[in-house]
Amino acid sequence: MGRRLVILTEGYSNPHTAKTASCLIRYRREEVLALLDSTQSGKTAQDLLGVGGTLPIVGSLAQVPEANTLLLGIAPPGGKIPEAWRPVILEAIDRGMNVMAGLHDFLTDDEEFVAAARRRGVTLTDVRKNSERDIARCQGLHDECLRVLTVGHDCSIGKMVTSVEITECLRRGGHDAKFIATGQTGIMVEGDGCPIDRVISDFVSGAVEKLVKANQHHSVLLIEGQGSLVHPSYSGVTLSLMHGAAPHALILCYEVGREFVTGLEPLRIPPLRKIKELNETMAGIFRPCPVIGIAMNSSKLDAAAAESELARVRAEFNLPVCDVIRHGPDELARAVLAYKQQVAAKRAG
Amino acid sequence: MGRRLVILTEGYSNPHTAKTASCLIRYRREEVLALLDSTQSGKTAQDLLGVGGTLPIVGSLAQVPEANTLLLGIAPPGGKIPEAWRPVILEAIDRGMNVMAGLHDFLTDDEEFVAAARRRGVTLTDVRKNSERDIARCQGLHDECLRVLTVGHDCSIGKMVTSVEITECLRRGGHDAKFIATGQTGIMVEGDGCPIDRVISDFVSGAVEKLVKANQHHSVLLIEGQGSLVHPSYSGVTLSLMHGAAPHALILCYEVGREFVTGLEPLRIPPLRKIKELNETMAGIFRPCPVIGIAMNSSKLDAAAAESELARVRAEFNLPVCDVIRHGPDELARAVLAYKQQVAAKRAG
Repeated sequence: MGRRLVILTEGYSNPHTAKTASCLIRYRREEVLALLDSTQSGKTAQDLLGVGGTLPIVGSLAQVPEANTLLLGIAPPGGKIPEAWRPVILEAIDRGMNVMAGLHDFLTDDEEFVAAARRRGVTLTDVRKNSERDIARCQGLHDECLRVLTVGHDCSIGKMVTSVEITECLRRGGHDAKFIATGQTGIMVEGDGCPIDRVISDFVSGAVEKLVKANQHHSVLLIEGQGSLVHPSYSGVTLSLMHGAAPHALILCYEVGREFVTGLEPLRIPPLRKIKELNETMAGIFRPCPVIGIAMNSSKLDAAAAESELARVRAEFNLPVCDVIRHGPDELARAVLAYKQQVAAKRAG
Repeated sequence: MGRRLVILTEGYSNPHTAKTASCLIRYRREEVLALLDSTQSGKTAQDLLGVGGTLPIVGSLAQVPEANTLLLGIAPPGGKIPEAWRPVILEAIDRGMNVMAGLHDFLTDDEEFVAAARRRGVTLTDVRKNSERDIARCQGLHDECLRVLTVGHDCSIGKMVTSVEITECLRRGGHDAKFIATGQTGIMVEGDGCPIDRVISDFVSGAVEKLVKANQHHSVLLIEGQGSLVHPSYSGVTLSLMHGAAPHALILCYEVGREFVTGLEPLRIPPLRKIKELNETMAGIFRPCPVIGIAMNSSKLDAAAAESELARVRAEFNLPVCDVIRHGPDELARAVLAYKQQVAAKRAG
């Protein structure tokens, strides 16, 4: 019996904060029965998050008796469980539902949740929980499996979506591609991965290296980027991931109109050209690692403005560019395959 | 009653592995009674570590009955307690000694140690233990307190020693300088600080920011750097520290003759010019942050070779250069004061 999810977004049903909810709806739609937000009851997921069509927003768990799992659908900075959610989580447990969360605060560290879950025989799952304890050794990676990392000019601009979309596009084309999840939402979507921002800092690159090595039987890995080299709160996580994954190539993701570093306004994000250069420099310390394509998130633009931005960026960088949601990921998937051939040719010659 | 330390270096009494021991001897000599290494009994600290003069290496705890604390004096990669040390730690506890360690493996997570310590009423201290849970907000730092970060071309090349030496030199000159410890050894020397490589990766820059803000009543902060931007195992820790500390200026540390990335041979360390550029770039994303001096670790050279290297580096970079142990830190301390005046002048004008 699979997961039949109610996703809790109480008070936070907007595309930015409810990123986990949006991605589960986008990539695991068949498992999601409803969102729970009593402040928005009666609306649809499409109304609030721009995905999910008629998927209902309900006001109480009683409206979805067939659900078997409550999934906490937000990822706030600091990763704490909102205090107002406590009664809903306890009610879910009381109704015999499992509860799954991706926050820094663990359900399984909360005595009240643990006691209630034990009484009802349900499972609490903390996706961010880990016991990583290995440093990166920079050994055992090979070039038969192409490693492509998504990077970005800020956090929450579509690195995960870009990675998943390219992976699925390559698979549809018969290629053995694998999405490597590095954050809680990606892990909930893919079913495996490593929650790197919850790993002890000394062991992040080692955890990523291990994850990559465990997946080198695939032909191409699309590795989910985290944060940004220019976001002071998260840049170290970004760099640990980059150096642990040792990518062959990068896909540069950006959101049109994002001017300020998220949460740190008025810090202004440097120009995209500078972002590209920084990422290529830091990924390319020991061997070249170029940006081979640009993923434009144009969700705030209309169609005409998006085409004009696309043309502008394509001209500036002379690289494949697309919005993986608006245009589909095909152009970037082709760029990945072309680069894989280049690497293979270099290895052969 | 202060600490009367025996430092355990059993089987690892060399300057590189026993870094913690060396630094405690260098900066807290008055608290250290002996090193314990039964494989080297009868020698002196000077013989094995190049510091400490006649400080004895003993073969058993029974030789130092007046000691009240056993301090674990190594910091191996991965930070595990060597299995062979277990009986010595238990013997120390049994003799009524406190035990202090800076490893990733916690004494206080080990049931046998905890039970023994409880029986004897002694204290186990894990310097790396922390509960940091705040992300960096990039708020509340001010320019009246100058923040100087040591960076390096590799790990274990003297960033901590450089920071401590400059701090003490400034204090001798009547300046209110403070050493900001960010690693276990620095914390054991200074008595406060944050073990950043043991913090959950998402919260490293936040922990550093908090530490800096708590010390802004001082005039100058010398912030202990960690790892290196070009050491793939630790680069993320390095960058989190850099972006959390938001330094005004950098001191670039290097060891003459260090060619390969520690533990990752044959990865070759890029040239010092490139290291300087990378650090200035990554520290200078939102405002310029120059390298204002170079700390040369010439411990593997004789005096003549050291002078020749000094002249070469001074000519190449046109910056103050010295070996803080061989020459004393005065030249770098003057560079810090000069830069503080520049920042003050810019603020005033």
